[in-house]
Amino acid sequence: MLVVMHRQATAADIERVVAVIRAQGLTPHVLPGATRTAIGMTGNTAAIDPALFEGLPGVVEAIRVTRPFKLASREMKPDDTVISLPQGTIGPKTFTVIAGPCSVENETMLFRTAAFLQEQGIRFLRAGAYKPRTSPYAFQGLGREGLRILERARERFGLAIVTELLDTEEADAVAAVADIIQIGARNMQNFALLRRVGRCSQPVLLKRGLCATLEEWLMAAEYVLSEGNYQVILCERGVRTFSDHSRNTLDLSVIPPAKAWSHLPVLVDPSHGTGRRAYVPPMALAALAAGADGLLIEIHPEPDKALSDGPQSLDFAAFEQLLHQLRRLAPIFHRTL
Amino acid sequence: MLVVMHRQATAADIERVVAVIRAQGLTPHVLPGATRTAIGMTGNTAAIDPALFEGLPGVVEAIRVTRPFKLASREMKPDDTVISLPQGTIGPKTFTVIAGPCSVENETMLFRTAAFLQEQGIRFLRAGAYKPRTSPYAFQGLGREGLRILERARERFGLAIVTELLDTEEADAVAAVADIIQIGARNMQNFALLRRVGRCSQPVLLKRGLCATLEEWLMAAEYVLSEGNYQVILCERGVRTFSDHSRNTLDLSVIPPAKAWSHLPVLVDPSHGTGRRAYVPPMALAALAAGADGLLIEIHPEPDKALSDGPQSLDFAAFEQLLHQLRRLAPIFHRTL
Amino acid sequence: MLVVMHRQATAADIERVVAVIRAQGLTPHVLPGATRTAIGMTGNTAAIDPALFEGLPGVVEAIRVTRPFKLASREMKPDDTVISLPQGTIGPKTFTVIAGPCSVENETMLFRTAAFLQEQGIRFLRAGAYKPRTSPYAFQGLGREGLRILERARERFGLAIVTELLDTEEADAVAAVADIIQIGARNMQNFALLRRVGRCSQPVLLKRGLCATLEEWLMAAEYVLSEGNYQVILCERGVRTFSDHSRNTLDLSVIPPAKAWSHLPVLVDPSHGTGRRAYVPPMALAALAAGADGLLIEIHPEPDKALSDGPQSLDFAAFEQLLHQLRRLAPIFHRTL
Amino acid sequence: MLVVMHRQATAADIERVVAVIRAQGLTPHVLPGATRTAIGMTGNTAAIDPALFEGLPGVVEAIRVTRPFKLASREMKPDDTVISLPQGTIGPKTFTVIAGPCSVENETMLFRTAAFLQEQGIRFLRAGAYKPRTSPYAFQGLGREGLRILERARERFGLAIVTELLDTEEADAVAAVADIIQIGARNMQNFALLRRVGRCSQPVLLKRGLCATLEEWLMAAEYVLSEGNYQVILCERGVRTFSDHSRNTLDLSVIPPAKAWSHLPVLVDPSHGTGRRAYVPPMALAALAAGADGLLIEIHPEPDKALSDGPQSLDFAAFEQLLHQLRRLAPIFHRTL
Repeated sequence: MLVVMHRQATAADIERVVAVIRAQGLTPHVLPGATRTAIGMTGNTAAIDPALFEGLPGVVEAIRVTRPFKLASREMKPDDTVISLPQGTIGPKTFTVIAGPCSVENETMLFRTAAFLQEQGIRFLRAGAYKPRTSPYAFQGLGREGLRILERARERFGLAIVTELLDTEEADAVAAVADIIQIGARNMQNFALLRRVGRCSQPVLLKRGLCATLEEWLMAAEYVLSEGNYQVILCERGVRTFSDHSRNTLDLSVIPPAKAWSHLPVLVDPSHGTGRRAYVPPMALAALAAGADGLLIEIHPEPDKALSDGPQSLDFAAFEQLLHQLRRLAPIFHRTL
Repeated sequence: MLVVMHRQATAADIERVVAVIRAQGLTPHVLPGATRTAIGMTGNTAAIDPALFEGLPGVVEAIRVTRPFKLASREMKPDDTVISLPQGTIGPKTFTVIAGPCSVENETMLFRTAAFLQEQGIRFLRAGAYKPRTSPYAFQGLGREGLRILERARERFGLAIVTELLDTEEADAVAAVADIIQIGARNMQNFALLRRVGRCSQPVLLKRGLCATLEEWLMAAEYVLSEGNYQVILCERGVRTFSDHSRNTLDLSVIPPAKAWSHLPVLVDPSHGTGRRAYVPPMALAALAAGADGLLIEIHPEPDKALSDGPQSLDFAAFEQLLHQLRRLAPIFHRTL
Repeated sequence: MLVVMHRQATAADIERVVAVIRAQGLTPHVLPGATRTAIGMTGNTAAIDPALFEGLPGVVEAIRVTRPFKLASREMKPDDTVISLPQGTIGPKTFTVIAGPCSVENETMLFRTAAFLQEQGIRFLRAGAYKPRTSPYAFQGLGREGLRILERARERFGLAIVTELLDTEEADAVAAVADIIQIGARNMQNFALLRRVGRCSQPVLLKRGLCATLEEWLMAAEYVLSEGNYQVILCERGVRTFSDHSRNTLDLSVIPPAKAWSHLPVLVDPSHGTGRRAYVPPMALAALAAGADGLLIEIHPEPDKALSDGPQSLDFAAFEQLLHQLRRLAPIFHRTL
Repeated sequence: MLVVMHRQATAADIERVVAVIRAQGLTPHVLPGATRTAIGMTGNTAAIDPALFEGLPGVVEAIRVTRPFKLASREMKPDDTVISLPQGTIGPKTFTVIAGPCSVENETMLFRTAAFLQEQGIRFLRAGAYKPRTSPYAFQGLGREGLRILERARERFGLAIVTELLDTEEADAVAAVADIIQIGARNMQNFALLRRVGRCSQPVLLKRGLCATLEEWLMAAEYVLSEGNYQVILCERGVRTFSDHSRNTLDLSVIPPAKAWSHLPVLVDPSHGTGRRAYVPPMALAALAAGADGLLIEIHPEPDKALSDGPQSLDFAAFEQLLHQLRRLAPIFHRTL
């Protein structure tokens, strides 16, 4: 149920609706919009009677939300969510490029990458201190030492840091450094972790699971939102199919329905999505054309020496050329980059 | 094995190589390129000795082709294949839009659509006289009567006709009308049908099967090519996954590897790929950005009254708006439309 | 719509219902059951009014059939379909083993296999004269010569011949030899071919397509049934998934719903389903336990020399041992073998 | 690398090999077998020279392990792993049935179920105190209160308790009650959780992820094994495909390769695998025939009133009948139940 308020509804009107929701044993969610406020509610197992709200002062209407996800749904919040950071916004008017190496390997390579990004006008740096690896014997990231390197990169270059959290036990350590906390595809339904980042103050970048439906993905977002963190960024990174031509099947076709069903911004990760650097630029351009709000891209000063994901990382020259093309394309889609 | 000839190789040099290939019990394929001729061969079950060719006059080198598909591979023919019809070309410099209704329903609606396309500067009309339907009780198309209507549309509006062939028995009837013969996804491995269109003089538009790998798709193309019809156009139309957000999963990520592995042009059908008209325009624009050579799009004067595929058909206004966007985008990718 | 007749309904009662169906422009299908006759109808695009039938003499009730497949549905025919041949029956009381090489390679190996089967008490021989191959350059089967060898094997050993038809043009030639005509997975939605075998007098063994849903598979069966050939045998042979452990994913889980939705017998092909001979026996036993009515199994006198599918063929000793286990298991499931 | 010792090798011989492994900076794993001891090692990024070990006293040979998983591989440990609990063993000679409700709903229903199982001779009770739910608004289990109910059921009925751990933070609480700790499909690649249960003393039941390959599943097992917990039980529970006939696609075909690649026991969960109670018994019987070591089955005193997974739960009568069939079948496969 979503209670839509008049444009002129007062704080007292809103407070009255909130009280009625609480009296039903439900949790109210006040959702301020561009022109009016709406109040969602969660916690109900059965349908709520709209009549409870429709006579109250300041209420325009009470709408049944038909999707199983509530706070993530566009029915409940018709306006696009915009994520604002000092380094820039993520939303419908911008095209945000987040780039960096798969993992923090050492300070030298990270600073070299950060300096390059700064030079290119890119203000979001991605790099993993903790790496989820299929094999227990593979390089698992530098851990706390990696976080410290990220922190120094942030101070020195002023970039926003996007880094992955793998485990609730590391939540405080990661939250102390990250400007955006990434939840990886394998953890998309790690519900304890989702609830934990729902209590963080940073935006959460939520990657789509390897075989997650759009509904499941938005339900995972709902776990974060329902804890009170309304800043969720979706990120498509390829799904698993029978395909032989790439590491995963990058599903650009999910972008329009994700935008239709939800108000959350959608990024695309063509590096994991394709697994081959040659296919990254065309998929990056296509993501922009398909309606994505930005990209997550792996770059490396020397891809052939990368400790992980080298074959899908762009070198600096290829990234620069891609940026050039993206900047030509963005205005056609009314976005700045 | 591919025998690459000198730029100055004579007809006699080429003939000599052809004779050596025949003497091995193999089939030679003379492949003229922009700057030089190459001669492929098929029919071998074991590896051929390059020494058979490397001493011959006019021969530069003999190259082992490592892919299981030969004539479809870019190793064998590095130059992009360009399909030329009086109405336009399909290849790397153009972006070809083929539009029309799912099926020929009657002359009135087809002529109305054809007139609209002509007015919009679109010169390729798609429409099915024979429809492959999951149910034997569903509308199967007008058959021969549909072909006659297509023929009249072609005469009156000068459009190139793209229409599907379902069965070897109808091959002559369809070939008498079609400018491009379409093979549908369900028939991608109907090998008798592939061989049959391999003996037609028209280009063949080969849709990707619902769960075909790229290699299987190119092997299907190889069936057509190996019969001597070198004019094959690939068309991605969505694959089957677990997805809940669309009818099929339109796999734009296959475009860059298809272009890397093969020299054949690649079109995209976002109508079948998404199954929902609202998602067709963003996917169409993304296809162009991803490197496709054109589109196959379903339009209908009154989509809500369509006998088949109404929910995925654009009306004329939506199509016109999409065309406008495509025409803004095409020059950035060095294509004309 | 299904019109269920009284047990004592007369031929005239039945004829009257048939006439009413025809008068609606529909096609009647008289379906005699163990205790009563029912009359199905196909060809309607809208719902039929049950009142048309419910007052007629001999009519018990008129039932709406809710599945899109009609003649294949258990709603329309509650009794299991039993296929009867001189060599045995295929249905709920038997467990039918159909075995043989992937392709007819020559008379010697086929006769050797046939003699072995005869000795083992197996009375159904499978072998392909026409082989659907991904590559146009691979061995395509002996064709007409293969059919002649099959014919001689049938005369000499008295075995029922199960062989694949690839193309409508070869229908008469194959029908002249086959006791059961096989339609392969790649042709499951080759609707012209399905209609053609719907007009043959032999039972049709219809393999499930590589990514066919159960509904699509039964709709393909419906194409055959709707032409008047009610003897369709379903055959599960593995579907395509992301799996790394076998050639296809043999979907035994489709057996119980196939039995629930339809009255048609269901066989399982563990050879194509797994692609590895070591996995064939456990899957064969599991198929019996899951409710299948029989098996289609590839055997070869010398699997390592097979022209196709060697790695998934059992040798004679392994097949004999599997038969021994199946014969111990069958009585527990109230089947004879 | 696996160092295989003589049957008569002494403790000192073994200690010497362990020391050499440690001297290389690697971790030794002493693996006692039925007739001889072998010593595996993990931690190497490059190949190890067999010559390091082959001259040492008591060493038969040093073998390269070719699979990416080591401790989970049958190369490294040819004998089947047998899990022993006071209530019974899980391994090649038994067929272990683990049954119970999806979730602990209250003490009454759990005790009723436990009493019934005891009466049926079943000694393993499954029930979730923590439930991973797609929606944050769905019933999430009774949590700690559920654990206390499980504890009382264990004391009173003497059953082994199998229950799921969702989060590292609850590991101590769950480990205090569980006889076998379950890791759910959604957490199959929650590596922090895998490492945590690798340090528990109980066996770990590891469900296969929704789209996990066999290699990924065994790599997840490797995470547990590499922490020193060698008691891992694999459990197939259905994978995600395009299928329309069941909730998931229960992949019985993974059993033979899982047994070939690994020495770990394999259970099957036909309840989640099919999602429909009518399909559970045939799939349970087929699992036994395919080589599984047991089942995980959902039963409920009143399935229609279940708080979760009611449609896939068997009632007591149906379960009793299934047990009867399993007990007839087990001896044929040389298993006791």
